[in-house]
Amino acid sequence: MRLVRVEHDGGPRWAVVDGSILGLIRDPWPGVAVATGERVPLKGARLLAPATPMNVVGMSRNTGTADRKLPARHLTPLDALRHVLGFTLSNDVTARGLQAGDPLWTTAKGFDGWTPLGPWLETALDLSDMRLTLSINAVPAESGSTAELARSVVEVLVYIPSFMTLGPGDVVLTGAPGAVGRIRPGDRVLVSSPFLGRLESTVAAEPVLADAGAAS
Amino acid sequence: MRLVRVEHDGGPRWAVVDGSILGLIRDPWPGVAVATGERVPLKGARLLAPATPMNVVGMSRNTGTADRKLPARHLTPLDALRHVLGFTLSNDVTARGLQAGDPLWTTAKGFDGWTPLGPWLETALDLSDMRLTLSINAVPAESGSTAELARSVVEVLVYIPSFMTLGPGDVVLTGAPGAVGRIRPGDRVLVSSPFLGRLESTVAAEPVLADAGAAS
Repeated sequence: MRLVRVEHDGGPRWAVVDGSILGLIRDPWPGVAVATGERVPLKGARLLAPATPMNVVGMSRNTGTADRKLPARHLTPLDALRHVLGFTLSNDVTARGLQAGDPLWTTAKGFDGWTPLGPWLETALDLSDMRLTLSINAVPAESGSTAELARSVVEVLVYIPSFMTLGPGDVVLTGAPGAVGRIRPGDRVLVSSPFLGRLESTVAAEPVLADAGAAS
Repeated sequence: MRLVRVEHDGGPRWAVVDGSILGLIRDPWPGVAVATGERVPLKGARLLAPATPMNVVGMSRNTGTADRKLPARHLTPLDALRHVLGFTLSNDVTARGLQAGDPLWTTAKGFDGWTPLGPWLETALDLSDMRLTLSINAVPAESGSTAELARSVVEVLVYIPSFMTLGPGDVVLTGAPGAVGRIRPGDRVLVSSPFLGRLESTVAAEPVLADAGAAS
């Protein structure tokens, strides 16, 4: 099932994508999609980020086999996945120039408007080997697969809640498997994946040179 | 003016402390306290954390003169302070044992229930030289003054919004000026200050040895 948040009647609403039609639903966070009966065309609809997170937690040092470690904790994948509403794309932006002077990465990761999310949540998806592609100004930059992540998507979704309670709308970034590239003000950045669609954004003129990373 | 969040009639409410009485008000985030007319005794009231932050940003390497640097940006203190509703106490807990293996401090700072806040917000306060005291199991551990911070409270409140927009309820921790101490499961930790009251908490049995830090 494909869920979107959409601007409708002056407020953000949730909807299920049904071909070219959006079927509005109630807040899906209890884990069920209850239709309100309202239907609007997908074409022309203004899609919003499909989450309003209180916490965004990202995995660092998770981009390739060099970072691979044995799982440190007892894994209970089914429990972890039971609390996941869906999967989406993100551009995990980093200001490389600020990382050297900011070992906690607060400024390097925290500017307004960074970490865009979308275009939709896919509620059922095999993430063991999903291709993620990054294009900058319509030129394919890099591509990677979730199979290359040091810790798999499921391992990450078990690990994070082992020390931090995640709530409805919270977001876990798994890290960008190989798909990174330098971005500059004005660049059009496209993160895409066969089952998660296309997430496009334009780099604002501020504040610094940064790297994009296609993440899920 | 002293503002508290209090449990009343099944929900959290804001109130102004007027001696031994709480005068309930509407949401104070627009910057004005509009009384609802309801009054309840302070005694027996269940006070809640006086903020429900989307972001909690803490200053690291800000605890003493050794960290002092020249201001890096043009300072506009009045603009920064105009958006501050008030000041409160926090216990800026750190799992020292986890910091070595987690350079981003996500686990070392992020456990559920850490960073308690309270007991109230003081809306007007001179924070240039305010004493902060940490006691563990009723034994005074350390004491420091905001005058010892490498960057002053005002400098911090100018710096953070220079790269990140703060919203109503967001919290900035200034760092603990000298007032730190080792805590263990079962310890009673008290952070106190002449004008900000007493913030008490008990260390849960999980997960690790940690340090407390009296912060504002």
